[in-house]
Amino acid sequence: MASTETEYKSSSTPPPPAGVDYFKVDVILRFLLLVASVVALAVMVSSDQTELVLFLNMLVPQPAKFKYSPAFVYFVAAFSVSGLYALISALVSISLIQKPEYKLKFLLHFLFWDALILGITASATGAAGSVAYVGLKGNSHVGWIKVCNVYDKFCRHLAGSISVALFGSIVTVLLIWLSAFTIHSRVPK
Amino acid sequence: MASTETEYKSSSTPPPPAGVDYFKVDVILRFLLLVASVVALAVMVSSDQTELVLFLNMLVPQPAKFKYSPAFVYFVAAFSVSGLYALISALVSISLIQKPEYKLKFLLHFLFWDALILGITASATGAAGSVAYVGLKGNSHVGWIKVCNVYDKFCRHLAGSISVALFGSIVTVLLIWLSAFTIHSRVPK
Repeated sequence: MASTETEYKSSSTPPPPAGVDYFKVDVILRFLLLVASVVALAVMVSSDQTELVLFLNMLVPQPAKFKYSPAFVYFVAAFSVSGLYALISALVSISLIQKPEYKLKFLLHFLFWDALILGITASATGAAGSVAYVGLKGNSHVGWIKVCNVYDKFCRHLAGSISVALFGSIVTVLLIWLSAFTIHSRVPK
Repeated sequence: MASTETEYKSSSTPPPPAGVDYFKVDVILRFLLLVASVVALAVMVSSDQTELVLFLNMLVPQPAKFKYSPAFVYFVAAFSVSGLYALISALVSISLIQKPEYKLKFLLHFLFWDALILGITASATGAAGSVAYVGLKGNSHVGWIKVCNVYDKFCRHLAGSISVALFGSIVTVLLIWLSAFTIHSRVPK
């Protein structure tokens, strides 16, 4: 009878095992953010391309580099920060699986930092995306020519990098949701 | 003696009164976000400027409008959404001051939506900011001329609108922090 009661009791208090599950999802999401940041950085940094461009009736080699645009430099800085943060927070998250008593406090800290990182990565994705769009389509109203017809490899790298960055930003939103949900699940009803 | 004990007890359980305070700050922050969104929208939409520009040796009137750039159109769409959300959530937040029993559940919903709105507003601020920066400084590497020396009023409006939008994004981060902290404060230690 006592054993049945214990079994019933343990099955009626799901928070502790569910909490452990949340933390494993948390670690997976943080690794996804790390991978997304590293891939976005690598593809952006390797985008340099040099093409022969007509200048004063002469074909001169003209390079296209990400560092020519402040928006892309900001993008690289932002995803360096988010990659570093994802690495550190994933390691902390792994170490917390062994120590459940500190989890709740760290979840609040994670949520604070995740919100900041989301602001940084989302604005960087928007900044790089809008400049890349001008490069793709040009803007006839102010006479900005499109450059992606010349620098095709450069633009393909930009598109890939910005897509992965968008995925990373969505992962950060999921991380905030997961932390909030985990903290909320500990509140007595 | 009994009265002293009650007093001691009430002073040792701060969560309920503190929770009420958080909610008032929440309402204030949501109104700040509403004001920031409306101001950013109004300043952006009223930025149109027409200048005489030399074209084939003739001075022709050439307008500058926010809708000529997809980044600014996205900016207007994003802050329309965030303004509407701020209005609705502020009203919900005010009505919740009278009904403390629903607060916690709504805080989680608020946090979910706040994270989404942060992603949208931060990316819109980044997108508009980077295109405005190209307009201000130009980009000599790809031959994009600066336009802010001609369209001074247009660029002043852009700068004002984007600054207010940045403030709105920071307010959204504070809203996430406040909701997370309030939920966390209800968890038994």
